[in-house]
Amino acid sequence: MYRTHTCGELRLTDAGKTVTLAGWVQRARDLGGMTFVDLRDRFGITQLSFNMERDKGLCEQARQLGREFVVQATGTVRERESKNLNIPTGEIELIVTELKVLNAAKTPPFTIEEETDGGDELRMKYRYLDLRRANIRRNFELRHRMAIEVRNYLSAQHFLEVETPVLIKSTPEGARDFVVPSRMNAGEFYALPQSPQTFKQLLMVAGFDRYFQIVKCFRDEDLRQDRQPEFTQIDCEMAFVEQEDILRTFEGMAKHLFQAIHGITFDGAFPRMSFDEAMKGYGCDKPDLRFGMKFQELNDLAQGKGFKVFDEAELVVGINAEGCAGWSRKQTDGLIDFVKRPQIGATGIVFVKWTEEGLKSTVDKFFTPEQLQAWADRFGMKQGDLLCIMAGKADKTRKQLNELRLHIGDQLGLRDPKVFKPLWVVDFPLLEQDEETGRWHAMHHPFTAPKPEDAQKLFDQVDLGSVRANAYDLVINGTEIGGGSIRIHDRTMQEAMFRVLGFTDEDARYKFGFLMDAFEYGAPPHGGAAFGFDRWVSLFGHRTDIREFIAFPKNNAGRDTMIDAPSRIDDVQLQELGLIVKG
Amino acid sequence: MYRTHTCGELRLTDAGKTVTLAGWVQRARDLGGMTFVDLRDRFGITQLSFNMERDKGLCEQARQLGREFVVQATGTVRERESKNLNIPTGEIELIVTELKVLNAAKTPPFTIEEETDGGDELRMKYRYLDLRRANIRRNFELRHRMAIEVRNYLSAQHFLEVETPVLIKSTPEGARDFVVPSRMNAGEFYALPQSPQTFKQLLMVAGFDRYFQIVKCFRDEDLRQDRQPEFTQIDCEMAFVEQEDILRTFEGMAKHLFQAIHGITFDGAFPRMSFDEAMKGYGCDKPDLRFGMKFQELNDLAQGKGFKVFDEAELVVGINAEGCAGWSRKQTDGLIDFVKRPQIGATGIVFVKWTEEGLKSTVDKFFTPEQLQAWADRFGMKQGDLLCIMAGKADKTRKQLNELRLHIGDQLGLRDPKVFKPLWVVDFPLLEQDEETGRWHAMHHPFTAPKPEDAQKLFDQVDLGSVRANAYDLVINGTEIGGGSIRIHDRTMQEAMFRVLGFTDEDARYKFGFLMDAFEYGAPPHGGAAFGFDRWVSLFGHRTDIREFIAFPKNNAGRDTMIDAPSRIDDVQLQELGLIVKG
Repeated sequence: MYRTHTCGELRLTDAGKTVTLAGWVQRARDLGGMTFVDLRDRFGITQLSFNMERDKGLCEQARQLGREFVVQATGTVRERESKNLNIPTGEIELIVTELKVLNAAKTPPFTIEEETDGGDELRMKYRYLDLRRANIRRNFELRHRMAIEVRNYLSAQHFLEVETPVLIKSTPEGARDFVVPSRMNAGEFYALPQSPQTFKQLLMVAGFDRYFQIVKCFRDEDLRQDRQPEFTQIDCEMAFVEQEDILRTFEGMAKHLFQAIHGITFDGAFPRMSFDEAMKGYGCDKPDLRFGMKFQELNDLAQGKGFKVFDEAELVVGINAEGCAGWSRKQTDGLIDFVKRPQIGATGIVFVKWTEEGLKSTVDKFFTPEQLQAWADRFGMKQGDLLCIMAGKADKTRKQLNELRLHIGDQLGLRDPKVFKPLWVVDFPLLEQDEETGRWHAMHHPFTAPKPEDAQKLFDQVDLGSVRANAYDLVINGTEIGGGSIRIHDRTMQEAMFRVLGFTDEDARYKFGFLMDAFEYGAPPHGGAAFGFDRWVSLFGHRTDIREFIAFPKNNAGRDTMIDAPSRIDDVQLQELGLIVKG
Repeated sequence: MYRTHTCGELRLTDAGKTVTLAGWVQRARDLGGMTFVDLRDRFGITQLSFNMERDKGLCEQARQLGREFVVQATGTVRERESKNLNIPTGEIELIVTELKVLNAAKTPPFTIEEETDGGDELRMKYRYLDLRRANIRRNFELRHRMAIEVRNYLSAQHFLEVETPVLIKSTPEGARDFVVPSRMNAGEFYALPQSPQTFKQLLMVAGFDRYFQIVKCFRDEDLRQDRQPEFTQIDCEMAFVEQEDILRTFEGMAKHLFQAIHGITFDGAFPRMSFDEAMKGYGCDKPDLRFGMKFQELNDLAQGKGFKVFDEAELVVGINAEGCAGWSRKQTDGLIDFVKRPQIGATGIVFVKWTEEGLKSTVDKFFTPEQLQAWADRFGMKQGDLLCIMAGKADKTRKQLNELRLHIGDQLGLRDPKVFKPLWVVDFPLLEQDEETGRWHAMHHPFTAPKPEDAQKLFDQVDLGSVRANAYDLVINGTEIGGGSIRIHDRTMQEAMFRVLGFTDEDARYKFGFLMDAFEYGAPPHGGAAFGFDRWVSLFGHRTDIREFIAFPKNNAGRDTMIDAPSRIDDVQLQELGLIVKG
């Protein structure tokens, strides 16, 4: 070893010991007769002390050290005169007697501090330097701990971690597959898995009973901040279970993580909400429950009074922004500007405020004070509150009001990343219809079972929009952390599902024949869930950008700018693969 | 839940309880008035009991159950009259009062028993049935336990598990890369990693100090029994360490696994052997130390006595097969046939046996009894032993004798898979020369550092064959389980290495510029190791075919015959990728 201790280890009780440390120069301070160097490693920072009187040569050597030099220092641990009680090693320093530069360093292109001056592009190109920043490094310590906790928890629950293949068959549904040309089978391709879905189901058919895997998955999609072409999933499946067993098991896992990582316990079970309730009450299927402002519908109270915007709307719906009656015209205009942005596309907001002068609205000429009071009663409004009401097509208006609710929540500081509000959303529809093509798509995936009472509709292909599934999402703070479903385990049901989704029988057999065959050899009832590990870790790290929790992420063009990938490959490689690149 | 207990859980103390089990019909026995069904799940087998007198309808229902039907049975636990003490549940049975078929099953194409009648191809096509066999399933329980033990051990040693990217840059050295065409960057390709080598080194540059990952790696090679296109590695790296620290750390991990999985402890450290000693003493760099038969060289004793085969040979070398003097002519001819096979390509073996009549050789006319006695002395031969001596070019002869040694070891039953003999092989050469082209290749990989005392030779490009590396392999029972090295952490050294390997400076910069740049921003001394997890698990499972320990393996043509991958992809996909398939 190049060291006897780490830079985070020495304490006052070590005073007098001769030790050797190795690490990076965080900074050096030259105070004339004295030079101090903060030596950093993953475990902490220890002050090295040099003195012109004590050893001129050594002190001058220390003065030559640049930022991020890698050095080894031997010396004696001594109590510091001016202690730094902000760090665990702050009561001691090392009186250096030997100093060796293990590797010099060029000046880094940005400062290696928690608050850095490096822009996004620069930090990604030099990711190995960005990762030296303590806050970023802590993200990976968190990630490591969460993975260990997940594995040990599930292992104790008799889950087996089984590695499923990465080189599989291309069966794109929804998102595009990444494909891998096969050299040994020219003209043919493997695909990288979007999830190990069919394999984990086969493991249930194989009698593995409880499977999990923390596993990389791949989707060739156009990217957003919270999407990466490769991402990591906690993928799970259980046999002989019903929805309730799965929710209980993974609520247990979530509670274990909350406790182990943040010391947070929850009284009782996580709340549950049906998909319909979520859409009606919050305008989305992943409500942020850190704050209220639940939707209230006003059609019965607000329509037929001559206000055309409401009268012509399918839905009149609002939220109560508590304590916001005093907001200025500028502030409420800001809200209108917000919802009028093209991404949201609303036409406006009707405000009702309850000030010392009573209820006052932007539509006073259409409604009597008694009518406004009836609205206020519905919201449980009190003096000082502000109602924001929107109207239009139901689905669209709910989406818009959801955006407004989150925006006001942000403005009021009600979305504290250190507060956690988990929620199960259940009873998802099995199918959703594409408005343009009229085609039905699986809301979760084609392997999700309908609720038994709705199953016949699938065979009959009637009233498909009303078929519900035993499908569920775990939502924390408005972020979908994961979800799953009870699966189909019967060949005829799976065939019916594929027909509804527009597969020809031949296509279904070509793509998923192996799974349907497997269902005929003794497939148990089963179901499972998958959780977005990158997202869960970033949520637990109180951040929204998952790239801060991925060691070497890709940018929005799918590039790793550090290694410069993807790149051209040479002609020999292409020839061996039997491929020609166009253009 | 479809069950209150698993099929492996009930004991005599549960007698009288009403329980529900769910599982697969292992077999049904109809004894006239009674029907017994063995119900199986991952956890065990429980006997279900039906009686015509007690419940005729139910009993008749049970008689209809076929092999591998999935059923749910409720009833009362009762002490069995004829106990089966071979299984933990063998003292009880379930008197069934309710029986429900959860899913019927077609007759499986092979028997689901430890000893099956299914051939390799059939079992791979129906892998989900093959995985139901208890011995195969146990392989995955072992794999799971080993992964948990590895992770918890390394975590306790302050290693962080960090996920490195799967979509990287193609930099083929040696084996071929699998590549992934990029849609967003048309004409460009990602590669799948052959190992996370450069990323783990960058994590050391990033100050992560100790990294590990149990990670899938990919090689597009022609396949053999112990090779798969995707395989799993325990990949590790440490900063501020020397070889000794790395050996100690991973010897600790290996000992932990031996103890945790097999209850085996080792007295003292694993033996070590230099590469040269291994080649001279065993003819290979991964000696199987479960038995002796170390090579002894005889050039000084056996040459110059008129036996041309020896006189013209670069090396005369043999082994002592203890206790084999009594082998028949047929047996020794069998050994000659073995070494004459084209895969081995030797011309013959000289035998010396020590029977009751004294030493007798197949070359008696060239050597006196005293001369033969001198040979015998060198081997520590005693009465009853058989010397097998080969001669020829040194390297080739050693390889051939290695094969013979292993063959005789097999014949004598000296290679018991339940005995474990670990060994570190150290001091590997840094480079090896291609006989045909004269080009130098990295023996381990291009990032391995020369021993400091040999480093100058690399810069001077002189005497390259004698440059040794701080590189090491962990060998268990003649299988290379893993290996690693101290890495280069200096740009000029890395550049010199690339030049020796025949890279142009431009090529080196294009492929590995990011790594060499990183070395200039404060790279610590570092090194690491990687272990073949599939192989290690199969060794601990006392088997040689790693496919038994991979849930969904590929065959020798790289195909998954169950899902039928790789396969053609549709034209839209190809078009989006800007690719044309030739022919």
